[in-house]
Amino acid sequence: MDSDSKKKGLTSGQRVAPNFIDGVPLLQVASNSPPSSVAGAVAGCIRDYRSCYLQAIGAGAVNQAVKAVAIARGYLAPSGDDIICIPQFHDVKIGEEERTTIRLLVQIR
Amino acid sequence: MDSDSKKKGLTSGQRVAPNFIDGVPLLQVASNSPPSSVAGAVAGCIRDYRSCYLQAIGAGAVNQAVKAVAIARGYLAPSGDDIICIPQFHDVKIGEEERTTIRLLVQIR
Repeated sequence: MDSDSKKKGLTSGQRVAPNFIDGVPLLQVASNSPPSSVAGAVAGCIRDYRSCYLQAIGAGAVNQAVKAVAIARGYLAPSGDDIICIPQFHDVKIGEEERTTIRLLVQIR
Repeated sequence: MDSDSKKKGLTSGQRVAPNFIDGVPLLQVASNSPPSSVAGAVAGCIRDYRSCYLQAIGAGAVNQAVKAVAIARGYLAPSGDDIICIPQFHDVKIGEEERTTIRLLVQIR
C-alpha cells in the first residue's frame, strides 16, 4: 500500500493521497520535499477541504513546509483565498521511538 | 550600539530591542536562539503591538522560529489571545550577498 510513500513525504510528481485527522487532510513533508510540489498539494487541499495539516520532523522538513505555505499563498491569492498557519507540536511513535513533530495547521483566514 | 546583537538573533536572557517595519517589530531568529526565549519576546510584542515579524535565514533558524510561535501560543492562551502566522519570503542584502530570508508575520487571529 502507499503508507510507506506517506512516511517519506511528498516527492515531485507524486500523487497526493492524504491521511485525515478529524476530516482535515494531513500531508507529510520531508527535508527533500520540493516546496513548490508541497505548495500545489496545499492549494489543492485548501480548495477541496478549506484546511490541511503539514507534518514535519526535523529542521529541514519544517523549513520546506514553511516555504510551501509561502508559495501556496501565491497559488491561492488569485482566487481570493488568504491562508494562515498555526504551528503545533505533536508526538508520534515511529517504531519504538517517540518523536516530536511540528504540525502546521493551514487554514483560510 | 546593539545593532550587532540584533543581527545575531536572540540569545537567552538578552534584552529585546526590536527593529520596526511599518510599526511592526521585527525579531531576528538564529539557529541557536532558544525557542522559549523567542516565544517570550513574541508574547511581549503581541501584547504591546498586536503583531510582530520573526526573521530567519536558514532551515535551523526557521525551525526555531516556528517552534517559538507554537510555544508563544501557550504563553498567550491564558489571556485569550490566539495567534496565527503568515510566512513570507524577503530578500535582504548581507554585505555584498543577497540572501532570501523567511519572515513569519505573527498576528492575533
